[in-house]
Amino acid sequence: MSAEPGTVRPGGRTARVRAAVLRAAGDVLAEQGFAHLDLADVARRAEVGKTTVYRRWGSVTGLVADLLDDMAEQSLPRAETGSVREDLRANAHLVQRTLADARQGALFRAVIAAATCDARTAESLRRFYEVRVAEWAPCVERGVERGELPVGTDAATVVRAVSAPLYYALLTTGTAPEPADADRAADAALAAARAEAYVVG
Amino acid sequence: MSAEPGTVRPGGRTARVRAAVLRAAGDVLAEQGFAHLDLADVARRAEVGKTTVYRRWGSVTGLVADLLDDMAEQSLPRAETGSVREDLRANAHLVQRTLADARQGALFRAVIAAATCDARTAESLRRFYEVRVAEWAPCVERGVERGELPVGTDAATVVRAVSAPLYYALLTTGTAPEPADADRAADAALAAARAEAYVVG
Repeated sequence: MSAEPGTVRPGGRTARVRAAVLRAAGDVLAEQGFAHLDLADVARRAEVGKTTVYRRWGSVTGLVADLLDDMAEQSLPRAETGSVREDLRANAHLVQRTLADARQGALFRAVIAAATCDARTAESLRRFYEVRVAEWAPCVERGVERGELPVGTDAATVVRAVSAPLYYALLTTGTAPEPADADRAADAALAAARAEAYVVG
Repeated sequence: MSAEPGTVRPGGRTARVRAAVLRAAGDVLAEQGFAHLDLADVARRAEVGKTTVYRRWGSVTGLVADLLDDMAEQSLPRAETGSVREDLRANAHLVQRTLADARQGALFRAVIAAATCDARTAESLRRFYEVRVAEWAPCVERGVERGELPVGTDAATVVRAVSAPLYYALLTTGTAPEPADADRAADAALAAARAEAYVVG
């Protein structure tokens, strides 16, 4: 098992097996894409019995669903800087670092590609983003309460607006976002929010 | 050959063969995705000799590249309403209709997915968006000249900002955009541009 920071987690054998299998599944997705994901191969890489992997995850889509659940659980909590501008910039930089990272960026591209042709993966991916948006939405809500943003601003739409240009560039033109793109994404979302572009009702 | 508006184009036999083959390729991509695209199957659907298809396009990625070139050539010209707000809204509604259309939306998702694992498709897709962004950028440039937007505004970034939330919702949560989303995307990009979020240099 890898001792890389963030990959060693508490728990007994069951938790260690899960961590090893999900790590191996992420590696295969990042290196070769969804089409090459194979439970026997993942078991071999994770040094876990094939029967265990088949019994516990059942299928490739079951494994990807669990990987996305784990990514949602493991991802970093929201910033709380006291300023909506700084919180949104922190969010943008987190997304930027993730998409620009070789392994993570490839992993996200693979899962997004898989979701276009597999309903169960699409559902897991949708849930992953719901969890992440819900984690960061309070930054916008606190900003409204502090009077930094108009009353009625839809928090989830603002959070999604920060991510959108970073993902769009990666997926349509293969351009990994840079830190300056993250600042621009956050500042643009903030400016639009201040101009009431995300006020609902 | 289909007589659907926009699919009958001038030209002799060569142009007719190309139109029929690209139509069939688009159908397969929209219905089954990139993984199932097969030149022999496309030839059969297009009622064109298999040898012709192999000789002219050579490979699946060559065929997708030509399809994307054709989509760039065939897509609608920019609006010229005299108002940057209305032009950006027209652009947003064009993107929204495309992504919400069953065939076109599935086709774009298939090609974007394919681009994540095939370098030649990625290059064709990048070129497609470059052509589309360049077509619409003058709307923003005219807006700057008319004093509707700050001097130094990067036109391409504004055009991409309009599309980004519509693609992002489709690709991460499987949500086809609605007309209200198009208005919001255009208005948010405009508000951010007015606040100098897209000024460069």
